[in-house]
Amino acid sequence: MASEVAEEWAQGTFKVNPSDEDIHTANERRLKELIGETAGKLHTGRSRNDQVVTDLRLWMRQDCSRLSALLWELIRTMVDRAEAEHDVLFPGYTHLQRAQPIRWSHWILSHAVALTRDSERLLEVQKRINVLPLGSGAIAGNPLGVDRELLQAELNFGAITLNSMDATSERDFVAEFLFWASLCMTHLSRMAEDLILYGTKEFSFVQLSDAYSTGSSLMPQKKNPDSLELIRSKAGRVFGRCAGLLMTLKGLPSTYNKDLQEDKEAVFEVSDTMSAVLQVATGVISTLQIHRENMARALSPDMLATDLAYYLVRKGMPFRQAHEASGRAVFLAETKGVALNQLSLKELQTISPLFSGDVSRVWDYGHSVEQYTTLGGTARSSVDWQIGQVRALLRAQRA
Amino acid sequence: MASEVAEEWAQGTFKVNPSDEDIHTANERRLKELIGETAGKLHTGRSRNDQVVTDLRLWMRQDCSRLSALLWELIRTMVDRAEAEHDVLFPGYTHLQRAQPIRWSHWILSHAVALTRDSERLLEVQKRINVLPLGSGAIAGNPLGVDRELLQAELNFGAITLNSMDATSERDFVAEFLFWASLCMTHLSRMAEDLILYGTKEFSFVQLSDAYSTGSSLMPQKKNPDSLELIRSKAGRVFGRCAGLLMTLKGLPSTYNKDLQEDKEAVFEVSDTMSAVLQVATGVISTLQIHRENMARALSPDMLATDLAYYLVRKGMPFRQAHEASGRAVFLAETKGVALNQLSLKELQTISPLFSGDVSRVWDYGHSVEQYTTLGGTARSSVDWQIGQVRALLRAQRA
Amino acid sequence: MASEVAEEWAQGTFKVNPSDEDIHTANERRLKELIGETAGKLHTGRSRNDQVVTDLRLWMRQDCSRLSALLWELIRTMVDRAEAEHDVLFPGYTHLQRAQPIRWSHWILSHAVALTRDSERLLEVQKRINVLPLGSGAIAGNPLGVDRELLQAELNFGAITLNSMDATSERDFVAEFLFWASLCMTHLSRMAEDLILYGTKEFSFVQLSDAYSTGSSLMPQKKNPDSLELIRSKAGRVFGRCAGLLMTLKGLPSTYNKDLQEDKEAVFEVSDTMSAVLQVATGVISTLQIHRENMARALSPDMLATDLAYYLVRKGMPFRQAHEASGRAVFLAETKGVALNQLSLKELQTISPLFSGDVSRVWDYGHSVEQYTTLGGTARSSVDWQIGQVRALLRAQRA
Amino acid sequence: MASEVAEEWAQGTFKVNPSDEDIHTANERRLKELIGETAGKLHTGRSRNDQVVTDLRLWMRQDCSRLSALLWELIRTMVDRAEAEHDVLFPGYTHLQRAQPIRWSHWILSHAVALTRDSERLLEVQKRINVLPLGSGAIAGNPLGVDRELLQAELNFGAITLNSMDATSERDFVAEFLFWASLCMTHLSRMAEDLILYGTKEFSFVQLSDAYSTGSSLMPQKKNPDSLELIRSKAGRVFGRCAGLLMTLKGLPSTYNKDLQEDKEAVFEVSDTMSAVLQVATGVISTLQIHRENMARALSPDMLATDLAYYLVRKGMPFRQAHEASGRAVFLAETKGVALNQLSLKELQTISPLFSGDVSRVWDYGHSVEQYTTLGGTARSSVDWQIGQVRALLRAQRA
Repeated sequence: MASEVAEEWAQGTFKVNPSDEDIHTANERRLKELIGETAGKLHTGRSRNDQVVTDLRLWMRQDCSRLSALLWELIRTMVDRAEAEHDVLFPGYTHLQRAQPIRWSHWILSHAVALTRDSERLLEVQKRINVLPLGSGAIAGNPLGVDRELLQAELNFGAITLNSMDATSERDFVAEFLFWASLCMTHLSRMAEDLILYGTKEFSFVQLSDAYSTGSSLMPQKKNPDSLELIRSKAGRVFGRCAGLLMTLKGLPSTYNKDLQEDKEAVFEVSDTMSAVLQVATGVISTLQIHRENMARALSPDMLATDLAYYLVRKGMPFRQAHEASGRAVFLAETKGVALNQLSLKELQTISPLFSGDVSRVWDYGHSVEQYTTLGGTARSSVDWQIGQVRALLRAQRA
Repeated sequence: MASEVAEEWAQGTFKVNPSDEDIHTANERRLKELIGETAGKLHTGRSRNDQVVTDLRLWMRQDCSRLSALLWELIRTMVDRAEAEHDVLFPGYTHLQRAQPIRWSHWILSHAVALTRDSERLLEVQKRINVLPLGSGAIAGNPLGVDRELLQAELNFGAITLNSMDATSERDFVAEFLFWASLCMTHLSRMAEDLILYGTKEFSFVQLSDAYSTGSSLMPQKKNPDSLELIRSKAGRVFGRCAGLLMTLKGLPSTYNKDLQEDKEAVFEVSDTMSAVLQVATGVISTLQIHRENMARALSPDMLATDLAYYLVRKGMPFRQAHEASGRAVFLAETKGVALNQLSLKELQTISPLFSGDVSRVWDYGHSVEQYTTLGGTARSSVDWQIGQVRALLRAQRA
Repeated sequence: MASEVAEEWAQGTFKVNPSDEDIHTANERRLKELIGETAGKLHTGRSRNDQVVTDLRLWMRQDCSRLSALLWELIRTMVDRAEAEHDVLFPGYTHLQRAQPIRWSHWILSHAVALTRDSERLLEVQKRINVLPLGSGAIAGNPLGVDRELLQAELNFGAITLNSMDATSERDFVAEFLFWASLCMTHLSRMAEDLILYGTKEFSFVQLSDAYSTGSSLMPQKKNPDSLELIRSKAGRVFGRCAGLLMTLKGLPSTYNKDLQEDKEAVFEVSDTMSAVLQVATGVISTLQIHRENMARALSPDMLATDLAYYLVRKGMPFRQAHEASGRAVFLAETKGVALNQLSLKELQTISPLFSGDVSRVWDYGHSVEQYTTLGGTARSSVDWQIGQVRALLRAQRA
Repeated sequence: MASEVAEEWAQGTFKVNPSDEDIHTANERRLKELIGETAGKLHTGRSRNDQVVTDLRLWMRQDCSRLSALLWELIRTMVDRAEAEHDVLFPGYTHLQRAQPIRWSHWILSHAVALTRDSERLLEVQKRINVLPLGSGAIAGNPLGVDRELLQAELNFGAITLNSMDATSERDFVAEFLFWASLCMTHLSRMAEDLILYGTKEFSFVQLSDAYSTGSSLMPQKKNPDSLELIRSKAGRVFGRCAGLLMTLKGLPSTYNKDLQEDKEAVFEVSDTMSAVLQVATGVISTLQIHRENMARALSPDMLATDLAYYLVRKGMPFRQAHEASGRAVFLAETKGVALNQLSLKELQTISPLFSGDVSRVWDYGHSVEQYTTLGGTARSSVDWQIGQVRALLRAQRA
């Protein structure tokens, strides 16, 4: 008969009465209609306190899997794009100042690997969600010998809670989930910020597809990056939920207090927001158009001063001296009003006799990035290694 | 010679020059004084960006171990106390209203198991701290073939970072640490709140030792729970650091920006606060005096109404009906102006014929708690199980 | 014809088309249906950027008045109660320890005067809301000579914004409103916390009416203070909205960005929450039952030690010495195992010859509170003065 | 003799003993050394609870004046600069997309007027700080007839607190101050963000002076905007303090609890930060170099499409139609591959017969901005009006 009730829910034919206090009493009331007083046994050894938190854990456990799938869909999209466009070079920035030539793929992957950490954290949060509180009663536990380990097995939980008072009133897993979302949103917001910049007229590196931007009939060149601004703004909202819940929790004495009721709305809203944002981000990345020529044009010889120093290091000069020598070359070029790569070999040799004909290779941006072959660097091999690492995580995740 | 520099630091004889920009340039300068220009090789393939974050990770990795030890010292103190005082009963509260008799140990353990989750989380944070960024350079990686896996092995890191841009600018591990501390402080604040209440004249369950409270010559009976108020207040401060850092991170574009510099002060302050608070909490718990008689006196028959219903359940009545029957007994007692346990068997039998002589056992508080034998409940066996579980975690932690 | 459109809105007959982008384009579209192309003039010199913020300011201006009225309804309820029950004494606490006898009205007023500050702040926020941005266009201002001071007069704004770029993108007034609500909720949460404590079995000073608490058929003596827990929990939620918006604002460059769109949902939710909470608080206060005897019973002679010192001060002893003398009396009483007021005059005189027969008045709690006649104190005259001050603010507010 | 003690403090010769609990007991102890037991009268009618909050209010009252002066120094610097450079045009952005030509002064003023609101708010906070709590005792008030209005006059406070319980435990003025700082920092952070963007190679509108940026010997063209990043990062830190204090306050019952002690460190740190940041911002603005040619070069005819529509509006066309006509012109130009201002009059007339020879004026950027003459707009007259308004506030502030 319990299965009949379940069927009614599945069919959408279950009728909730105004007098039903919550889903548990509704089920019991319906069961009573079907089988009589015996239905009154349903609540035996249960309490609303342990039931609501069990419900929430069941819901969140599933939701984490859903969000994880959306997160990996985004990561996969990014990695695919990084692989497809690994030959595109553009400036890497620090302090928003052009610093060194890097691969566009390297930029994409810098954001993708941040998201893999979010995935790792989500699994940990899910592990702590997946702990069964049922059988804790209102506060003291269950007096009828309920076998909680059996319940755990049947409901497929990873563990059972250790203490009934704690079990009914702790919401660590909610706070953790909200913080997980806050940190993940911070990553997405930083990526959005980059793309908004790269999409300005001044940078002109990328262009959002029409589906993810709002044009203007009057100013067709003006594409407002609505989708990215949305991502950026939601980071604040999600963090607000985390801060709000933590403030509520912090002020409570132990055991169940009705204040805890705030947990569900926070979880549902943040879950919805994360779903939407992850999907929008996936759409943005998969449809983004890049302007390779503008990216290439933004590279300039002064970004190779570091490489010039490394050239001398390879010839045996201690780095500190090489750094100074390169600085002198930069100064010389500036004094002469020429680009750094326009200095003649002779001029360079006035700075150090270690300069020889092969210095011309330094001025090749492609050669520049290819030097950064250490793991994690921007050389092609290293970018491929990164792609391989992330793909391996993806496979492990699916397993 | 590098070891000579290290020795100077160890001896406290290293002299920092005003012109030293940071510890890395100071070391290089000193080495140069000792061995000449070759010292200029020290910075080869390094960048301040990857060095500062490596330093921070090294510091935090060690600090997590230190904090973990303090946390477990507190947990151990609590478990010892729970074991020693497992026969003390007092009221369990929900909504701050007396609900059911529970063991005092059960209350202690409810807070101790919350702290074991903090320990679990701290290990996860430490795992993510323990990832080596060295070799990432300023942004593009290292062009001199540095073997990062060798560095990892030598510096005893668990893994290496995957992407150089991300490695130098992500501070997830800092945000995670600050959030870890915020959630742990929330637990300690809730425990402090309980103890402040239990220490009021009105509750009079516990009394802080003089070392952890401030008396007054005028009002010697008034013991201000300064130590507990300190714990409670620090929870706000620690969360503030977490919120502040997250706000700073959220507004940044990718790669290194000087804003990241805020990370260190936050970490150091929060680490100091956590150390102090964990030690104060340990001191409070280990020296706290309990008033057993007051605890016992606070138990009253009306707290056994739930047990009365379970009595009927055991006799075969569906829970919902038993609940109603017990409610009628409560109402009857109130009407007659007697305590619930003063109702005669005859009176009880007017409510249900299932009542018989053995109902008298229901009124025994010791018998009451002993019913809650499910795992996590407040029966002696279950409390012992909890103690065993936490002790097992402690042993696993030490291994 | 514009009035015809207005009428349709008023009647609820206005039909929104799926193609209407927002309320402004809907109005223009409808007007066009009624009067043709001339309707196209409606948007002249306007921009969505200045329109949406004008709309929001109009809404919030009115909402502040509504919330102010609810806030004053609560304050008035509190003051009425303070006046009606000004003869009830009970313990005043610091550090949750019993400190001195005070009037119950003094406690009520301590919370009421906090709320008067909220009222003062709300007026200031409303003043800054009531500034007209219309005529700022999207960013550069209006090129058609719109008379903004005329618009200000017609729409009854207190001032006009000074700079069009700032006007369309600043949301200070939203942040201020959210912070106003957060601080007000903090006050209400602290009052709720007090009442939850006073409503415990242990304190038994107050009892919530049934409408504002949840009883249990099983445990009728247990009244869960749901209404107060709701107030307490909402403080976290409201602050979360404030924190979230501030984080969003902080990360923006200047002028309009779509991120600002988050403002409205925050304002609406917080406004709804404040409305509900203020009304619940008013209901709680107006229906609360107090237990005078329990309050009186909670007073004890040791709470008069400070008064004993003041007795000596009045006889000419410097305070510091009087404090010590009183401390010795307390110690003596404790040693002898009697209450402080059980010491004989002779015994007191061994401590100081200044003690004489009139010391017996010190032990009268009514006399004790009547000493605190300075403005703001707990004497009857001073409590009446407080009531007068708050009533004067109420009248000023209504004027 | 009290003046002798004051003199010792002024001279720096006052010796604090290890046994002095705080400054109040230190003063009393010293006075006792000078005049004997009569010094014991000093504490008469006082309590640490009302003294510490009086001290804090005294300190903050003065600090607000200091911060206000620094804030106005910044505003004045901005207005001076706006006046001096009012002929410089550059693109105004919305959504970080080029929108319309505006005056550089208009941008400066957009940030200056935001800061005038901060000034207004600071005065309000200061007004609420400037309320005297002295005479409130620990909780119940003062029993010795202290004349609080006399104290108010002597200590130059604007009002006295209304209720002694509230007076000793409310920290609204601290929370308000911290929020004031948070909102002000948000403004400074947004300005810093703009300037960081404008200082990128891609924008190249501004260049920080060397004193406010960090160059690199290797990459002299790379100027890291350290000063601006500092401002941006401190916004997070300041907000963190606000969030932390609010969380602490929220969880307290009423009256004094030691948790309140957290207030001072927060205030001092935030005050120091605000001082530093306001001075750095003043230095940045006063030494910033602008690149007028780059600013001019960034203007393009497509930014005048709105103006083209307004041209038709002035000829009598309803705005909606004019907007469409301008859109068709943009489309035509795009189709023909020419700039919008390269369309011939004939071509324009195919779109609307209202176009005539005077359309050429539309393409003049100087003419464009001069159209925005409404108050708050970007026309010269309107910018001058803004400058006048802010200068008037400055004068009022000084009065």
